Amino acid sequence: MTNLIDGRAFARQVHTETASRIGDLARRGVQPGLLFIRVGEDPASQVYVGMKEKKAAELGIHSETLVLPQSTSEQSLLELIKAANHDSRWHGILVQAPLPRGIDAARVFSQVDPRKDVDGFHPLNAGRLLLGETDGFTPCTPAGVQELLVRSGTPTEGAEVVILGRGNIVGKPLASLLMQRGTRANGTVTIVHSASRDIESHCRRADILVAAMGAPEFVRGSMVKPGAVVIDVGVNRVSDSMTGISRLVGDVAFAEVQPIAGKITPNPGGVGPMTIAMLMANTVKAAELLSA
Amino acid sequence: MTNLIDGRAFARQVHTETASRIGDLARRGVQPGLLFIRVGEDPASQVYVGMKEKKAAELGIHSETLVLPQSTSEQSLLELIKAANHDSRWHGILVQAPLPRGIDAARVFSQVDPRKDVDGFHPLNAGRLLLGETDGFTPCTPAGVQELLVRSGTPTEGAEVVILGRGNIVGKPLASLLMQRGTRANGTVTIVHSASRDIESHCRRADILVAAMGAPEFVRGSMVKPGAVVIDVGVNRVSDSMTGISRLVGDVAFAEVQPIAGKITPNPGGVGPMTIAMLMANTVKAAELLSA
Repeated sequence: MTNLIDGRAFARQVHTETASRIGDLARRGVQPGLLFIRVGEDPASQVYVGMKEKKAAELGIHSETLVLPQSTSEQSLLELIKAANHDSRWHGILVQAPLPRGIDAARVFSQVDPRKDVDGFHPLNAGRLLLGETDGFTPCTPAGVQELLVRSGTPTEGAEVVILGRGNIVGKPLASLLMQRGTRANGTVTIVHSASRDIESHCRRADILVAAMGAPEFVRGSMVKPGAVVIDVGVNRVSDSMTGISRLVGDVAFAEVQPIAGKITPNPGGVGPMTIAMLMANTVKAAELLSA
Repeated sequence: MTNLIDGRAFARQVHTETASRIGDLARRGVQPGLLFIRVGEDPASQVYVGMKEKKAAELGIHSETLVLPQSTSEQSLLELIKAANHDSRWHGILVQAPLPRGIDAARVFSQVDPRKDVDGFHPLNAGRLLLGETDGFTPCTPAGVQELLVRSGTPTEGAEVVILGRGNIVGKPLASLLMQRGTRANGTVTIVHSASRDIESHCRRADILVAAMGAPEFVRGSMVKPGAVVIDVGVNRVSDSMTGISRLVGDVAFAEVQPIAGKITPNPGGVGPMTIAMLMANTVKAAELLSA
């Protein structure tokens, strides 16, 4: 019996539910619209936006992608966002990270209309999530991690949740999400980071261990409590020093950890597909709220 | 030698610094203005607002208090807030909690202009704090706890910080504050709450233990690691079952814990005075930003 948490299969469940909501909107004459803004030619960004565009098209979400040159000024990016905020075709606006140096990403994210902020990066949405309000948008990766836990039957109530990494995109919003009251959350959350001491002993007491610090294969077998549920958010490109060939690895040493974990996400095929599923769900939520 | 963290003395330090900033503003012709809105006749609210008014007057902050009847509708409260948002005399607007039943406190707090939100309860300010932005307002009690730690020479970097309670006013924003990068924070934060298991063992591993769950004398001597720094945020009114006489107690069983703790806040005289100091500092920050 496998202990893998099949992110692709659970993402398909979410997409089916999302498609049904898109059908409801269509009966009211509303088609969700999602605008992607991509700056520069970062290869990973091209791949990510391409995958999101494809999924949107499959589901019947109208999308367009604005591709801006690497030399784009912050000012002109902000003007484009302002125009999109006022364009009723777009229920969601996604500015793909990373942005070129010289552009203040936090400022850019904070200029997206919070009602169209399907990435959940606006501080108003970060605050709503922390305060337990449900009318905002949860960032897609944390929302996806929660879905993976719930749909894989992992109890979160009272669970010791240890999150490795305190980034604004994963660690902090995931902590916000899993510490709330309610059956989908209610965990005892600890955030561990670069200044933490005794990281291994925090990991070893976790019922749910989420690795999101961007350190290749940081979580070793010796750091995992037998039976723990391990979620690997990391995407790290590492090069073989001999051959120079690069490959993607997660934050978890999968081969070592899988035999010890109760359940574990493969990587790829775990968190990634669910992140895209939550983006689509957020876009439909935005369309529902804006057309209500 | 005492191991008490003298909140009154540290609050005086903050007030001296705040007074100097008020002097700078005065030289530019600006007097900070703070509007209190109090609804109903909750006795504790009357006391709290009275203490804040008195301190504002001592420092040269102009303040007024609107006292509204218990029967005030949410709509009329929101209209008053809207008017105050547009009134340039007020740099800070504070709606004293608790509000009467039938008024949605979260909605009320979210209608205060975030630039005048000196209580730091607006979700935009909650999000800015979580995301590590410094242009917002930190709720006064968490900000005061951080000041007490810093000014008492308690190292926070890498410290195991255990916060009992996940309220929107103390637990969650304090976690947001102490998990950030930087020498005033950088702790490894765990939030423990009503659904947590094994609360005692979390408490016993804390270097810094903050009790903010509103449970009278919950933290006993056996729950504290020798040498730990213990911060008592609780204010609980308990009645003697024999005499019926009521008294205020904290969340920490002070007599038991003091001999074990490295440092401990008295209660009263610990967190309370610093909370008021941070409100005054936030009001001055608002005046500085709005008059810049």
